[in-house]
Amino acid sequence: MSESKPDGDVMRRANYSSHSPWEPIVGYSRAVRIGPHIWVSGTAGTDEKGELVGLNDAEAQARQALRNIERALERAGGSLGDVVRTRIYMVNVDDWPAIGRVHQQVFGSIRPVSIMAAVSGFVHPAMLLEIEAEAFVLTADET
Amino acid sequence: MSESKPDGDVMRRANYSSHSPWEPIVGYSRAVRIGPHIWVSGTAGTDEKGELVGLNDAEAQARQALRNIERALERAGGSLGDVVRTRIYMVNVDDWPAIGRVHQQVFGSIRPVSIMAAVSGFVHPAMLLEIEAEAFVLTADET
Amino acid sequence: MSESKPDGDVMRRANYSSHSPWEPIVGYSRAVRIGPHIWVSGTAGTDEKGELVGLNDAEAQARQALRNIERALERAGGSLGDVVRTRIYMVNVDDWPAIGRVHQQVFGSIRPVSIMAAVSGFVHPAMLLEIEAEAFVLTADET
Repeated sequence: MSESKPDGDVMRRANYSSHSPWEPIVGYSRAVRIGPHIWVSGTAGTDEKGELVGLNDAEAQARQALRNIERALERAGGSLGDVVRTRIYMVNVDDWPAIGRVHQQVFGSIRPVSIMAAVSGFVHPAMLLEIEAEAFVLTADET
Repeated sequence: MSESKPDGDVMRRANYSSHSPWEPIVGYSRAVRIGPHIWVSGTAGTDEKGELVGLNDAEAQARQALRNIERALERAGGSLGDVVRTRIYMVNVDDWPAIGRVHQQVFGSIRPVSIMAAVSGFVHPAMLLEIEAEAFVLTADET
Repeated sequence: MSESKPDGDVMRRANYSSHSPWEPIVGYSRAVRIGPHIWVSGTAGTDEKGELVGLNDAEAQARQALRNIERALERAGGSLGDVVRTRIYMVNVDDWPAIGRVHQQVFGSIRPVSIMAAVSGFVHPAMLLEIEAEAFVLTADET
């Protein structure tokens, strides 16, 4: 059951919030870390004030969403290089090449598993996409 | 590779079923546990007879779905407090405030990562939502 | 933090690609393995040339998608028996009984957790579905 360190250190859970206005309303974290695992919420292209950037611009929203994911991972002690899975949900399926291009620029050499699927909408009507991530941190003493 | 206990105990897989009539038809479990990990299926607002509660009432369906998730986690030796990720899929995006309120009531202090996205439908036309969960149990000897 | 073997072996990450033409464009892997964890991308019913099989035939696409998932798991040192979660996204909700039947044939005794939800579309308009998988390999020295 244990995934504790050989030296007896124990695993703890850390929750990380961000500037998204929806987190306190719905009751969720931007990221949760336990041991090597980091889970990141569905993340939209909002800026530090919680306002959406890139109106009608899926590429800009994707770029900002991945920036937000990067920041969340770093606050949790990880990085984009630790990402093992992303999920890309978008409103307009025709946006996939633009969103895919941004994903490729960020993850082209990291190569997490992924999925792209079109959905009907998100909590704000101007959100064209949300991206989720899951990471597994291979720490120094493991590599 | 091993996540075995220091004392040599090994990890085993346990599958848990529930009253959902779809499990035997599609071939899935309500929950699977291995070591500290518990995965919970997409869960609708069905009661113990497998019948949907809360017709046209997303809030009631969300409440029942989370009750079902809680029961599944408990049967697997975990609890709502161990949940690290939820995913909320709903048919009508306008239901998000009502569903979000229920999520906040249950998870407001636990704060898993999450996502809310509107989809086109589920295996039963009266299902307004399904909620997934993933948990990581920090056992007594780890905290 | 460590999930390293008692004998001091360390965990490494391995990425696996497949014949899907979308992987290099979007920058993702078919499967990623770290330790006992294997993550598999959203997988469509494409053949070894990357072409979709089963035009307008969700059952055929599901069968092929699961074959592709099986191959990815095997290349990563796992098998269908290790799958703990699947996710089935389909375009036409009325296809669920046919897709569910295929899932049952493959997973009826393995019983991962799952979800079936209808979405609006995928990166190719003829794709009727995508299936994701997550596996946890209980290795010989653990069972």
